[in-house]
Amino acid sequence: MPRTVAVLGLGLIGGSLLRRIERGVIGYDHDPVEVRVVGYDHDPVTRDAARAAGFEVRDRVSEAVFDADLVVVAVPLPALPELLAEVGAHARPGTLLTDVTSVKGPIAAMVRGPLRYVGGHPMAGTERSGFAAADPALFEDAAWVLCLEPDTDLAGWLDIAGLLTGIGARVVPTTASQHDAAVARISHLPHILAATLTGIAADPLARSLAAGSFRDGTRVAGTRPELSTAMCQGNAAALDAALGEAIERLMQARSALRNGELEPFFRTAYELRHAWPVTETEPVELGPADLLALGTAGGWITAVGPDVLHGRRPKY
Amino acid sequence: MPRTVAVLGLGLIGGSLLRRIERGVIGYDHDPVEVRVVGYDHDPVTRDAARAAGFEVRDRVSEAVFDADLVVVAVPLPALPELLAEVGAHARPGTLLTDVTSVKGPIAAMVRGPLRYVGGHPMAGTERSGFAAADPALFEDAAWVLCLEPDTDLAGWLDIAGLLTGIGARVVPTTASQHDAAVARISHLPHILAATLTGIAADPLARSLAAGSFRDGTRVAGTRPELSTAMCQGNAAALDAALGEAIERLMQARSALRNGELEPFFRTAYELRHAWPVTETEPVELGPADLLALGTAGGWITAVGPDVLHGRRPKY
Repeated sequence: MPRTVAVLGLGLIGGSLLRRIERGVIGYDHDPVEVRVVGYDHDPVTRDAARAAGFEVRDRVSEAVFDADLVVVAVPLPALPELLAEVGAHARPGTLLTDVTSVKGPIAAMVRGPLRYVGGHPMAGTERSGFAAADPALFEDAAWVLCLEPDTDLAGWLDIAGLLTGIGARVVPTTASQHDAAVARISHLPHILAATLTGIAADPLARSLAAGSFRDGTRVAGTRPELSTAMCQGNAAALDAALGEAIERLMQARSALRNGELEPFFRTAYELRHAWPVTETEPVELGPADLLALGTAGGWITAVGPDVLHGRRPKY
Repeated sequence: MPRTVAVLGLGLIGGSLLRRIERGVIGYDHDPVEVRVVGYDHDPVTRDAARAAGFEVRDRVSEAVFDADLVVVAVPLPALPELLAEVGAHARPGTLLTDVTSVKGPIAAMVRGPLRYVGGHPMAGTERSGFAAADPALFEDAAWVLCLEPDTDLAGWLDIAGLLTGIGARVVPTTASQHDAAVARISHLPHILAATLTGIAADPLARSLAAGSFRDGTRVAGTRPELSTAMCQGNAAALDAALGEAIERLMQARSALRNGELEPFFRTAYELRHAWPVTETEPVELGPADLLALGTAGGWITAVGPDVLHGRRPKY
């Protein structure tokens, strides 16, 4: 298990992780341990804020990573290549490395140095950002994707999964490709649809009549455009496919509308929406070979035991 | 001004109107008056519930409308033709008639008898329905469309506008055609987009990763499918056009994505979304000839005075 964690980037995600780990003993299922965490941010003002809040913060990447068992890079996609080069130059060989970026396919190729990289993505966030918004409870019951590829170091994967389940996250095993296709549909496409709807209702009369369905359907159009852009362009191939599917479904809905047959379209969505989020799950015990099947089935890991993994699977 | 109002249909909208008018003196700007309200619902259980809550409720449409100055029909679109036939048979000639249906174009043709019809649509609602959900505060500051066509009785329009501004609604003057185009974009299209997004993210992994942007973007997919269907099919022509525009914009977004140029798309939406809802408005005084221009500019009527209309207009 990682005993010394370096968190690079102290925004909403990195800051929340720093606060949660620092809060105390991590609830490893069979062996509670103390984990030490140090932080780094390229912005001196953020470093000062984190120090003022009582955290151990280093002024250089090299000082933050040289003695770490696990390095978490929590910076936006455009800042990753430079930061990963620095981590590769200063971390010990074999150090575990993970990230929190919302696309997984392109990241592995950016990793430098003989590190054990495991792609990660916590499905948690708010419209707020920055260290001031960081919240140690942000990951409680949140899904946290950990990618498992043919070349992933399994022991390293299990170590990170142990830490993340220890802080209360639901660890979801997937491949980078599965992850990117899924988040294109549940996160990146919603941003495109919200911006589309906002643009369609731009005239003053429409804006004066708009109420609840417009408000909720356009909420994420209020995300800072550079963040939405980086997120969507970073996952362009999978989002392109999701957009194609959305266009196809809208053309089908238009045909149904013209034929007076919209009800099945709405009924299917109604049933799916009322069955989300899943409330009925069952506990499962599994070995490493079953991890990807569990993720594909909508399940997650809740604890990493010495001999067996514990998880939950939705009942469908 | 109408002194006796009959509300036919005591669901969320009709029940809330009954409760609000019954609550007491209507705040007409220059001349507070008492308005009497009677209710009717085709469902005897609902009638009993409304009576038990202290309201005057009639068992037949004829008994509810024969002495009314204003009849408000607050039933779903499919129930309108039969109810309007009954109102036409029993209301006094010249009685004011309005409705609350979410489409306006097709309704005028359903009106029977020598009544003075003014199409209406309050932009208020929740996912809940029925008399039990009725709330006298539902219309406070809500937009309430009142249609003004070349053949609309202006005195009747002003009487209804006086009542509705008196209960705190923002009365928006539009034509039926403008209204139908606007609500297709801000209400009916969001229902189609929400159902589309729900269907695209139907696999277990996507559902297990889905979080805030999916939750908000799909909320109205939880609306009862017969309601969404009736609403959308009832406004099929305008919704067809809005759907075409959405498909066109999504294809443009896909091109921008492929060219790495999504930022202007998101930036435009970001600015529009942060400027909604409008917070800066200015008071205006106007005459009947200026009503439609006020509505088109995103404004509304706040009070009907004896000589002048009072309204507000957004500052853009």
